[in-house]
Amino acid sequence: MTGGPAPALPAAMRVHIQNLPGEALFAVTPVQWRAALDRHGGDHDVSLAEDDAGFSAAIREAQVLVTWTKQVRARLVGADLRAMAPRLRVISCTSAGLDRLAPFDWLPPHVLLLNNRGAHADKAGEFALMGLLMLAAGMPRIAAAQRAKRWEPRFGSVLAGRRLAVVGLGTIGGAAARHARAHGMRVTGIRTRAEPHPDCDEVRATEDLDAVLPEAEFLALCCPLTEATRGLIDRRRLSLLARGAKVLNMSRGAVWDQDAACDLLDAGHLDGCVTDVAVPEPLPPGHRLWRTPGMTVVPHVSSDDPATYNDRTLDILLANLDAIAAGRPAPNRVDPARGY
Amino acid sequence: MTGGPAPALPAAMRVHIQNLPGEALFAVTPVQWRAALDRHGGDHDVSLAEDDAGFSAAIREAQVLVTWTKQVRARLVGADLRAMAPRLRVISCTSAGLDRLAPFDWLPPHVLLLNNRGAHADKAGEFALMGLLMLAAGMPRIAAAQRAKRWEPRFGSVLAGRRLAVVGLGTIGGAAARHARAHGMRVTGIRTRAEPHPDCDEVRATEDLDAVLPEAEFLALCCPLTEATRGLIDRRRLSLLARGAKVLNMSRGAVWDQDAACDLLDAGHLDGCVTDVAVPEPLPPGHRLWRTPGMTVVPHVSSDDPATYNDRTLDILLANLDAIAAGRPAPNRVDPARGY
Repeated sequence: MTGGPAPALPAAMRVHIQNLPGEALFAVTPVQWRAALDRHGGDHDVSLAEDDAGFSAAIREAQVLVTWTKQVRARLVGADLRAMAPRLRVISCTSAGLDRLAPFDWLPPHVLLLNNRGAHADKAGEFALMGLLMLAAGMPRIAAAQRAKRWEPRFGSVLAGRRLAVVGLGTIGGAAARHARAHGMRVTGIRTRAEPHPDCDEVRATEDLDAVLPEAEFLALCCPLTEATRGLIDRRRLSLLARGAKVLNMSRGAVWDQDAACDLLDAGHLDGCVTDVAVPEPLPPGHRLWRTPGMTVVPHVSSDDPATYNDRTLDILLANLDAIAAGRPAPNRVDPARGY
Repeated sequence: MTGGPAPALPAAMRVHIQNLPGEALFAVTPVQWRAALDRHGGDHDVSLAEDDAGFSAAIREAQVLVTWTKQVRARLVGADLRAMAPRLRVISCTSAGLDRLAPFDWLPPHVLLLNNRGAHADKAGEFALMGLLMLAAGMPRIAAAQRAKRWEPRFGSVLAGRRLAVVGLGTIGGAAARHARAHGMRVTGIRTRAEPHPDCDEVRATEDLDAVLPEAEFLALCCPLTEATRGLIDRRRLSLLARGAKVLNMSRGAVWDQDAACDLLDAGHLDGCVTDVAVPEPLPPGHRLWRTPGMTVVPHVSSDDPATYNDRTLDILLANLDAIAAGRPAPNRVDPARGY
């Protein structure tokens, strides 16, 4: 938020949920909404739609819009928001990272932007653990051998005692650190300020990154994409990793130099990478990321469990609306200046 | 062992360690031997070799032979053991599964056979957890999409609440069950007798397998290969699994019908498989296992961490020699009748 706390809003709001066409797995249903209200209490009205007509009918009256970042980008960014949605006070995005919406100059100061930080913790934490275990076991190289139909035994290690650096200590980075520590890894967290974190052995500031990288056997990228993190893990910094290092990217493709990662895998400097993100997404068939031995490509699905996602999303939304109604800071507010 | 406890043997034994030529990662070194004696205490003599001359020179005097199952198979099975190794009382194999040495009619009754059960617990447990997480995340299908260079998002689930059946509750199956439970899975163990196990919600006897399989969302095969388990998970039993089921094989390739597994993956009945074992090993380039979508092939490396393997192996050996010297049953003795 830019400046001061948000003005309090009514306890009963008019909420519009705009689902994404063709994404049946993640479409919020009326049953899920009622169940969330039952769990949480509250007296909000809701409308749900997934088409243009439903959006147009609802947006004029909506005080809260819940939707996907790509819907916000398509429908709101560059639009005359005051005319289109005169009562709108809250936009709640169902993603944790809102980098697709930057820069945020399209957002009027009276509209609060919320992200979905927290909905991903369980699934993302397990994916992070899986990624670390796969890297320790050499699975990216083993998968390349399977692509080549070659039986090439190569032995991995356990996680205990290995050094992990985690860039970004939000929900996902924190969960990654917690799982890693539970398996005996020694965890260095890296974030803007070097404040301690309960799941890290130590925390260093981003400006110390060059000193941390040569010591890391595993590097996990879990930060949001912002102007400060775009290109943060560039070719020079990837080269600072020790020979045999392993990299897990659960952040955004633009945070690292994926071409340099491929070069370093080809050179044998990096042992393996698991990336849930790419530039561009979807990755075209001819892209070298698909075929570089040691690079495991996951199609941006690390953090979303359809079985629990909407329930968690609605719980987070309703807790934020409560906070706003009570004049407290909304836990999931996005600071347009920081970008997360 | 067939019949009664072994006769006690001296506290100081003449031990010969026959390493495998060309397996530098797993060759026991004199430094590792001395470190193990330092940790453990004991007054044994040792010789180490990896060639034929070294073997021939040592085997006539050796009371204890430590080596790989494939060395036992090549050098001892079918040989005149009493003539070749007149003082030999203990053969300690560095593998957990000794199915390659069956039937055990080559083994004189005065020679005790030990396996390496326990050396694999940490690494195998982490591999099992990795396999379960990979199956939950849909990684075998995602890897097939990478082979085809296709960006095809498919969402997985967390482990919590999912039902896992573990066949075999030895060191590896027990570790798999423990990790699965730590992540909230509901674990049914299956073993010869339905005795409770601390890491399983319930244990069923092998004869109840047909009733367990339809309820399992995940199936982990962790049993030794014996006459009782060969072909245990045949086409009929694989078909008993519910649609969308996932299978992890850390046992032996001959325990399941791998061709049926491929058919069921092709039909979409099984969602994914991760197998560390195959028939034959090494798997030839033309084999369908390599290319079946949803089948992740790992070249029999799940359970061996070179960084810790020899230390654990020697610790287990020395503990067994102590037990034998004291007239107690050796914890790692193999019963030739059971085959494990």
